[in-house]
This record gives sequence, structure tokens and C-alpha cells, in this order.
Amino acid sequence: MTVDAAVARATAERVLLRLGARADDAATVADVLLEADLRGQHSHGLLRLPTIAGRVEAGLIRPEAEMRILASSPATALADAGNGFGHAMAERAMSLAQDIASDAGVGLVGVRDNNHIGMLGYYAERCARAGYVAAVCTTTEPMVHPFGGSERLLGTNPIAIGVPAVPDPFVLDFSTSETAIGKIIDAVQRGVSIPPEWALDGRGEPTTDATEALAGAINPFGGAKGYGLSLAVALLAGLMVGSAPNPEVVGTLDTEHAVNKGDLFVAVDPRCFPGGSGLALASTSLLDQVRSSRPAPGTDVVRVPGDRGRERRERCIDAGIELPSALWATIGELE
Amino acid sequence: MTVDAAVARATAERVLLRLGARADDAATVADVLLEADLRGQHSHGLLRLPTIAGRVEAGLIRPEAEMRILASSPATALADAGNGFGHAMAERAMSLAQDIASDAGVGLVGVRDNNHIGMLGYYAERCARAGYVAAVCTTTEPMVHPFGGSERLLGTNPIAIGVPAVPDPFVLDFSTSETAIGKIIDAVQRGVSIPPEWALDGRGEPTTDATEALAGAINPFGGAKGYGLSLAVALLAGLMVGSAPNPEVVGTLDTEHAVNKGDLFVAVDPRCFPGGSGLALASTSLLDQVRSSRPAPGTDVVRVPGDRGRERRERCIDAGIELPSALWATIGELE
Repeated sequence: MTVDAAVARATAERVLLRLGARADDAATVADVLLEADLRGQHSHGLLRLPTIAGRVEAGLIRPEAEMRILASSPATALADAGNGFGHAMAERAMSLAQDIASDAGVGLVGVRDNNHIGMLGYYAERCARAGYVAAVCTTTEPMVHPFGGSERLLGTNPIAIGVPAVPDPFVLDFSTSETAIGKIIDAVQRGVSIPPEWALDGRGEPTTDATEALAGAINPFGGAKGYGLSLAVALLAGLMVGSAPNPEVVGTLDTEHAVNKGDLFVAVDPRCFPGGSGLALASTSLLDQVRSSRPAPGTDVVRVPGDRGRERRERCIDAGIELPSALWATIGELE
Repeated sequence: MTVDAAVARATAERVLLRLGARADDAATVADVLLEADLRGQHSHGLLRLPTIAGRVEAGLIRPEAEMRILASSPATALADAGNGFGHAMAERAMSLAQDIASDAGVGLVGVRDNNHIGMLGYYAERCARAGYVAAVCTTTEPMVHPFGGSERLLGTNPIAIGVPAVPDPFVLDFSTSETAIGKIIDAVQRGVSIPPEWALDGRGEPTTDATEALAGAINPFGGAKGYGLSLAVALLAGLMVGSAPNPEVVGTLDTEHAVNKGDLFVAVDPRCFPGGSGLALASTSLLDQVRSSRPAPGTDVVRVPGDRGRERRERCIDAGIELPSALWATIGELE
């Protein structure tokens, strides 16, 4: 079914308020969820709301939590999110990184004990719109095998990078895996096969059978390079901030486990560099050169990271977002 | 032919001294070149020496250059390398980032007007061995098309990440392109075809003809994700540090153009985080878990980034490095 974006947002906000969220937290969480749906990242959209509600009821999300700073240096901070609402705490951490960067040039904030933070590009985009370069990464449940391996040891460990540009920033937001577990589950439910480059089966062989893939492991994207990036996220957002080793991460998807992954937020103030206040204009010039370059045969236009999501967002602001009827009914029951 | 590593290093150092390099610079440049050959990264090895000599003779490398700091903040610095020896200046910049990080927690150093810096993993590894997390990236001549595009607008824009571990650090070092131009040139010379996923021809169609690929553009690795990373490097190591837009980068490969690319060096002191002094041990534990996990069928062992290069290095320290006879003769003439 199609739901008007403003109605979806207001509904999500009411649900979050009913769950005990403070007003500002309810607004932030609803905004991040809705922005994911508007960009077609439905796995990070309103479908998370029933899980969030279940986690609040199970005491795994604590609406009253405050962010505590455990350690800081001129350019860094380590924060304990106290198992609060993940998106709201992530927004605070990104703001803190930005505040630190405004004084020190760079702000790097690690976060422990925070719930699922959803679409990373949200935070990177907001920070880039404020004039800062931003980077965000986080560890997730192990579903991905190492390059050359076959066991689930790594998460889909996503990375986002934002860079100022006008009118809209560069926003790169990608998982370090070849696909998402949700797409494999979707293929199982629809009874269709999957591309052979997505996953290995339980014996470590490439498979086009979605059910076999569920018993195996997702491939890292881009072979050894994507694997290396995923492992770097595991080391930095995971171990450096003192959260669980990637193979042991739990609690971002279920309503049973306390979350134990780690997040990392980085902001850089380009005005530290001579001419850095002109970064947005210089970026825009390069991005526009790329956009206006010759497409490959069969491609209509060359896009830069963030373009496709924004195009979709604009359509959905007008036309509404597509949500499963059952999900919308469930959300209605949470109100 | 096979050349003993110590002989190769001493020869390179003598050539650099003859070119007017200071003793410490000659030692650094020779070390970076040799370490590349030892790891099988021959395109960043001693074969660069004749180009370096030609650039010194053309006045494009200035042996007497000093690094000048153009701007700084608590966690950042922008340096002008004065067209000195690229590898030596890169080593200084990485050290500066590390020094800044030891005070501020993070050190981010942008470098302008620096010559080719070779194998990025060298600097990341050195910094990681000193106990810091390191990241390095640089822009290179445009040879890569945007995802969905067909024009050469982006460099192979490599990225390296180092993380402390024992006995050897995690060292990820990769280009954001599917292959290197050197491999395509090699295929032309040997008259063999190339894999269809490497490059597009001049009309923007995938090609297995290496000569057609030379007239076209190399693919970014990993589709839209690798493209996004390459563009992020272009924005940050390129535009943020005030160097040339990626489509206009020249001077890393030839003996005619002053170099105009940019480099970015980042160091993070993990001791800013509680328990961060234990990062090397925690990393080692995770990396060893990955190494000892079940390989995919047909793979002998699961490796982590840095392992393969070190294995090769150890073999070459004993057995010598393979160099083309013509190259070794040319280097001999430079002594």
C-alpha cells in the first residue's frame, strides 16, 4: 500500500512517544526511519518499528538513557549510549564529532552499547550539509565470510562518507557485503533463485539457491578489497571502541539480545585547510563534471553517490512510500 | 634476472645519493621502492627509479626541498612538499600525522605538491607498527570511468589502512580500480586478451582487447561502491587539500609535468580509548580467528590483509627479487 510520507512520519513519532521516547528522540528516530524508506532503503525504514517496540518492551532499549562520555582527548571521545534509541544516540554522536571538529579540526567519536542506527548516510548527509566532511561505520551481526573463507565471521559492516557540495552533498552509503540478508530472505519467500555472486552455501560453494545461501554466508563485495574494508570496520568500529569482536555481535535485529556492536563517527572541518571553505563549490564542480560526462551505452545518465536516493526521495515525497499492508497494520496497533 | 635484496637496496640508495638526495631521503626512497618489489608490487618498485632520475634532471623533483606547513589546527596540518622526493615527503607527512595524533588523538595531514609516493601500505604499516591506526590515500592520473559512465575522469586512487596487531599489523592497501594500467599495457605487449570485467573500450563497451582498453577506461572495482570510494578520494585527497581536480591530475608517471595530485595521511592513537592500548592484542585475536577459519573449497588458507605480501617478502629476502634485465642495466647506468 502507499502511505503519505507526512502521515508515516507522524505515525512513527506517535509510536515512539508512546514507547516512552523523549520528544526530540522520537522526532529523530522517526526522521531516520522515514528518510530510509523515502530512499528505498526499506530494510532500515519503518519495518524496524515493531522490532524497536519489542526491544523497548524487553528492556533492551532504554528510552531514558543519556549518552555518557567515558573518555576524551582534543580530537576524540568515547561514548556509552546506555542502550538508548540507536538513531537518536547516533545523531548525538555525529553532532559531538562535529563539535569536536569545529575546535580541533577533526572529531572522532566511538560509541558502545548503542542500538541499531539504521541508514548511516543520514548522519553523514546531515554533517556534510553543515559544512563538514563526515564518515560513519558500524559493525553488524556476522553474515559475511572472509575472502577465501566460508564461515560467517564478518558483518555487512556498512560505511558512509559525506562531503559538502551544493545544493546537495556527496553521500556515499554502502555495505561491505555483496548483498543484504534481506534480499536473500526475500528470494526464499518468493521462491526465486539468486545471482551466483551473492553468497556461498553451507559447504562454501557458490550457490543460486536462496535457501542454501541462508545456511551459508554472504560474499564480501569486490572480492579481497571489500573483505579488507569489512575487516577494517570490525577492527576500528568494533575492537578500537571496545565493543564485541565481529563474530560475536548480536542485538541489532532481534528482541532478545542486548546489543554489543560498535559505531564510529568522524567529522573533519575543511576550513582547517586554506581554501577549505570553498570545498563545497569545488566538489560541486567535480561532481557536475562527472554527472555531465558521457554515459556508458545503455545508461541514461552518470550519477554520483546520493543522486539516486534523492531522486527517489523526491518522487516519494509527492507520491507516498510503498509499505507492506501487514506492516502498516502492525504499526497501527503500536500507536 | 634475480637480484639480491640488499644489493638492490644499496644500488638504489647510491643512485638517489648521486641524484642529490640527502642521506636520510635516499635511504627512505630506496626502502619504499625495495619493499614494493619484495611484496610483488613491482609497479611501485625499482622500475620507478629511471623516472625519478628523469624528473630530478628535468627539475620536477627538487632534492633540496623542505616540507613547509601551510596551515595547522590541533588535529590537522596542510603541508607543501615543495616537489621533493615523493616517498621521503610521504614518510615525513605520516610521521607528522602520528606526532599530531599523539597529542590530539587524531592527526590528519594533507600534502600538496608532492611527487609519487609509491606503495601506500608502506606508510600505513610503519605507523601501525608504532601503535597507531593509519589511513593513507592519494589521487592519481585519470584512467578510470565513473560507474555508469565511460570517460576517464578518476584515478586508480588507492587507499591504505593499517591497524596494530602482533607480530605484524593489519595492512590493507588497494586501488579503487578493477586493475592497474600496467597490467593492460603488459597484455598489449604479450598479445593476450584481458578479462571482460577490467575495462571499457573507447565506445564505452566492455572489451577483452587490451589495445581497445588502452583507448578506453579502466572499471572501478566493485561497481558503484568502488566508484564511490574513488570519488571520495578525489574529493578529499584532491580537492580538500587544494590539489588539482582528479580529471586534471598529471605528473606521477612521466618526466614532463610538475605533479599536481594530493595526498592525505591520517593517524589515530587508540590509547585515547579505554583499553585502546590493548588494540594490538584484540586485533591479533580476531585476525587469528579469521586465519584459522574454514577455507572455501579450492583455497588453502584464509589470509588477512598484509599476509600475502609478507609471505612473498620473506621468500624474496632469501631468494632475491625478480627484475627485468633491461631495468637492472638502466639502473646500473644511473649509478
